[in-house]
Amino acid sequence: MSEHAAVLFANEAFYMAFDRRDVEAMEDVWATRAAVTCIHPGWNPIEGRDSVMESWQAILSGSGAPKIKCSNATAHVIGGVAYVTCHEILDRGFLAATNVFVREDGSWKMVHHHAGTAPPPVESDEPESPPTMQ
Amino acid sequence: MSEHAAVLFANEAFYMAFDRRDVEAMEDVWATRAAVTCIHPGWNPIEGRDSVMESWQAILSGSGAPKIKCSNATAHVIGGVAYVTCHEILDRGFLAATNVFVREDGSWKMVHHHAGTAPPPVESDEPESPPTMQ
Repeated sequence: MSEHAAVLFANEAFYMAFDRRDVEAMEDVWATRAAVTCIHPGWNPIEGRDSVMESWQAILSGSGAPKIKCSNATAHVIGGVAYVTCHEILDRGFLAATNVFVREDGSWKMVHHHAGTAPPPVESDEPESPPTMQ
Repeated sequence: MSEHAAVLFANEAFYMAFDRRDVEAMEDVWATRAAVTCIHPGWNPIEGRDSVMESWQAILSGSGAPKIKCSNATAHVIGGVAYVTCHEILDRGFLAATNVFVREDGSWKMVHHHAGTAPPPVESDEPESPPTMQ
């Protein structure tokens, strides 16, 4: 498996754990030695594995946990670090995400997740309207 | 200068270029050899230096370009890659950002920027309310 494919596999494992509300699988997705951070949509950044895992426990066990699918994932591998940009397709809208991974014991593990609101994925090369800053 | 300080310096150069609407300085912030990507608030991911720079040209030359300051920047250095999480303080609200950097010719250069809406920065350790997913 190429490094790009391995990163996309780890990224997919994250969304599978999310979609299935599987806290143990989510814990396995994240790095255990490297420092981890997370920016949920509309939330302040969270630092540290304990705090990040508590946030996932709250999200995945909550009644409002959304169904989620990843699309348009693109991996960028730079040595032992990689990041993925992708869309998240939820029940009620779309998000754009940045997911950062590092290699730990031969596997790609997530060290950072950032998701924020986005329009539906663009399929054509047509230019978009200028972005707003908030 | 420590690597962490050098990364935060590069991060600050990004926000200075943004705040001053300085397109040339913004072009100098971003990597020229590594692939670059950008997720503006509420926008789809943009890939490739030409497209990313066109987006900055549009933003910085637009009449609605906001004044912007960075706060609470935290750098994570992993070999030749680093990422920063921080708040962006604008005229009309707050954003949370992820900025990824790589080393090119001895300097830290931006390869990815992702900003999305956030509440005001939290100064205390009090737990926040659970996040919403959109």
